[in-house]
Amino acid sequence: MCIAKETLDRLGDKWSVAVMHELSPGTRRFMELRRALPAISKRMLTATLRALEEDGLLERTVHPTVPPRVDYELTQLGRSLLESAWTVMNWGESHTSEIELARQRFAERTQHAV
Amino acid sequence: MCIAKETLDRLGDKWSVAVMHELSPGTRRFMELRRALPAISKRMLTATLRALEEDGLLERTVHPTVPPRVDYELTQLGRSLLESAWTVMNWGESHTSEIELARQRFAERTQHAV
Repeated sequence: MCIAKETLDRLGDKWSVAVMHELSPGTRRFMELRRALPAISKRMLTATLRALEEDGLLERTVHPTVPPRVDYELTQLGRSLLESAWTVMNWGESHTSEIELARQRFAERTQHAV
Repeated sequence: MCIAKETLDRLGDKWSVAVMHELSPGTRRFMELRRALPAISKRMLTATLRALEEDGLLERTVHPTVPPRVDYELTQLGRSLLESAWTVMNWGESHTSEIELARQRFAERTQHAV
């Protein structure tokens, strides 16, 4: 699959944008992310962070402390993807009333058609 | 769910952007869309068109011919959403090499770590 479509899929998946958003203020640790996103499971957060790291959207740093401390931080690439995600979300927010009106009209049309 | 997140989900679903893209040149009929998107089932195209109409992203016009002719056309709202989808896809295209490089490095790192 081409990366352009993969990028759309990533923005549409359940957690990638939420995790990137939580990382936008700066470096976060795993437990900080879990507390910030209570609905995400440990397994899903681990998989989401790994997929974002794999594509270069975040950096994972292991500090040689005892026990080792692991930090996650958005890369420049990650920040720029989050910006384009915000373009889409801002579109949604600024067109909410038009969409809600269209849904109402559609419901009326389809009820009359039955 | 808020419309901003719904909008991200819509861009990430399998067919909405592909159908809107096929409608970008102008009015299309159902069979024209099916021929343009051979991998989509009749049921899925019907559901996708209905969901796009419901949110005011396209208009469905039934012409009183025998048999009736049905046209689908993007609305201004649909065109503007397609534009923001293109912002994301263009992001993907313009960062393909960085993402592929990051994937390669990640694979090397995780192979050594095993």
